[in-house]
Amino acid sequence: MSIILRTIAQTREHIAAVRGHRLAIGLVPTMGALHEGHGALMRRAREENGYVVATIFVNPTQFDRADDFQKYPRDLDTDLAFCERFGVDAVFAPDAKEMYPGEPLTSVAVAGLSTRLEGEFRPGHFRGVATIVAKLFNILPADRAYFGEKDAQQLAVIQKMAADLNIPITIVPVPTVREPDGLAMSSRNQRLTPDERQIAPLLYQALCEAERLIGNGMHSASVVRQAALALLAQTPAFRVEYLEVVDPATFQPVEPINGAVRVVAAVWLGEVRLIDNLPVSVR
Amino acid sequence: MSIILRTIAQTREHIAAVRGHRLAIGLVPTMGALHEGHGALMRRAREENGYVVATIFVNPTQFDRADDFQKYPRDLDTDLAFCERFGVDAVFAPDAKEMYPGEPLTSVAVAGLSTRLEGEFRPGHFRGVATIVAKLFNILPADRAYFGEKDAQQLAVIQKMAADLNIPITIVPVPTVREPDGLAMSSRNQRLTPDERQIAPLLYQALCEAERLIGNGMHSASVVRQAALALLAQTPAFRVEYLEVVDPATFQPVEPINGAVRVVAAVWLGEVRLIDNLPVSVR
Repeated sequence: MSIILRTIAQTREHIAAVRGHRLAIGLVPTMGALHEGHGALMRRAREENGYVVATIFVNPTQFDRADDFQKYPRDLDTDLAFCERFGVDAVFAPDAKEMYPGEPLTSVAVAGLSTRLEGEFRPGHFRGVATIVAKLFNILPADRAYFGEKDAQQLAVIQKMAADLNIPITIVPVPTVREPDGLAMSSRNQRLTPDERQIAPLLYQALCEAERLIGNGMHSASVVRQAALALLAQTPAFRVEYLEVVDPATFQPVEPINGAVRVVAAVWLGEVRLIDNLPVSVR
Repeated sequence: MSIILRTIAQTREHIAAVRGHRLAIGLVPTMGALHEGHGALMRRAREENGYVVATIFVNPTQFDRADDFQKYPRDLDTDLAFCERFGVDAVFAPDAKEMYPGEPLTSVAVAGLSTRLEGEFRPGHFRGVATIVAKLFNILPADRAYFGEKDAQQLAVIQKMAADLNIPITIVPVPTVREPDGLAMSSRNQRLTPDERQIAPLLYQALCEAERLIGNGMHSASVVRQAALALLAQTPAFRVEYLEVVDPATFQPVEPINGAVRVVAAVWLGEVRLIDNLPVSVR
C-alpha cells in the first residue's frame, strides 16, 4: 500500500526519514483523476529513483473558471489504487486548508512565457501553477520531478521557474501518452459526450498534418497553421482558441520555421476544453 | 578564515557536506558594507547554529534607482575580515552573472505588504528582495535565517513569503542596532556628510516621541503622527517620505491604536535616504 500523507508536517517528517536512508526521491505532482499519462510519469519516476512520491491536489488557484474547478473529476480511492499499482511509495493528498491556511499573498510568476496561449486564454493560470509547484517543491524536497509534455507550456514555465529560482530539483519531461486513436490522455476527456469523444482525435490529426508539412520541408509557419486550421474547420463542433507554431523554450511564434518547434493547440468541444501539442523539427 | 564560496555549484556541495555532519545551519543574507547591525545577526546565528553562512551580494534587481545601486558601498576584503571576526564559517559571495545568468523571467511577489511605504516609494523593491531571498534559500538550505528589524517591512515580506511558499527555514528577527546617539546602523550612513550625520539621529528622536506618546496612552494615530512630523519639521534638511503608525504584520495604517503597532519612517537627508522604525505597544 502507498503511504497516505495528509498534512505538511507529517510529509516533511516522512521525507526526512527517507532522506536518512539516502534514497533518491522522485516526485509526481498531479491533480488526481489519474490516467495512463500519469502512469507514464510514475513508471519513469520508479525507474530513476529509490523512492516515489505522488501528490494529489486539485489546486483552486490555477483554475480560471469556477465551473472547471467544480467539475474537475475527483475520486481519491480510485487514484490511490492507481498509485499503488504503479509502485508509488507515498501519496501526499492535502486538503485546501492545509495548502492555503489564512490568506495567501505570495505568488510566483514567470513573465513572457506565462502570458501567451494558455496564459492568454486562462488568465492567472500559470501564476497558480508556478506558485503551487514552488510550494510542493518546498514541502517535498525531491531529487527529480516528473511532468508530462502534454502540458508543454506548463512544463516550460516550471523549467524556467526552477532555473531562475535555483530550485535544486531536476525537472524531467515525459512524452504524451495517447489513446489508440491518437487523443492525448487527459482527465478532462471523461467529460466528453460519446459523440464528442469520437471526433476529439481530429485535434491530434490536425497536429499530425502540421508535423507532416514541416517534416516535408515547409518552412512557412503561416502555411502550416492555415492547413491545420482548415482541417479542424471541417468539423464545426470544434471551436479553436489557438493553433500556433512556437519556439519550444519561449513559446513565442516562429516565422519562418528553422530547426525545432512545437505545434500547440487548444480547442473547445462542447463544454470541454482540450489541449495538445507535438514537437516537430524541419528537415 | 571563513571559507569563500564563489559559485552556486561549489556552495551546494559545501552545504551538503555540512549537512552530512548534522550541523544546524544559520544563514545571514547581506549586501555587504557590514556594520554592527550585521554583527548582531552573525552573533545570534553563531549562538543558535553549528554552522554559520553569510552571503554578500549587492542585488541589482531590488534597487529602484540606478545611482543608489552604483553608489552602494562595496569592499569585499573588509567584509570578509568582518565575517571572520564574528566567527562566520563560510561566505557566499557570487558575482551578478552567477546569480542571474541569461534573462531571468521569474519573480516572487508578496501582494498587499509590498505595495505600501517602502514598496510605494521604491517600486519593484520588494519583488526584487523576495526573489533574491527565495533564490538564496534554494542555494543555501539553512535551518534558520537572520534578518534585522531595521528593515521591518522587508522582514514582514520575507516572513509572509516563507509561510506562503512553505519554505522550511525559520526566519529569525534581530533587533535594530544603533549608534550611541540613536541613529540606526545602516550601510548608507557612510554616505552622509559630517553635517548630515550630526542631525540624522533626529529621525530616531521623532520615533521616540511617537513611542512616548503611545506609551502614555495616546490612542490617536493621527495625533502621534503629527507630533513626530512636527519634530522632524524643525530641521528643514529632512525631507519626509512617510511616517506612519502601522500594523506590525500587515503594515496597514491603524487608527485608533490598540495593542502592538510599529512606527515607521523614511526620510531624505541630502542624497541619502534613511529608514527607521520602532515597535510600540499602547498601554
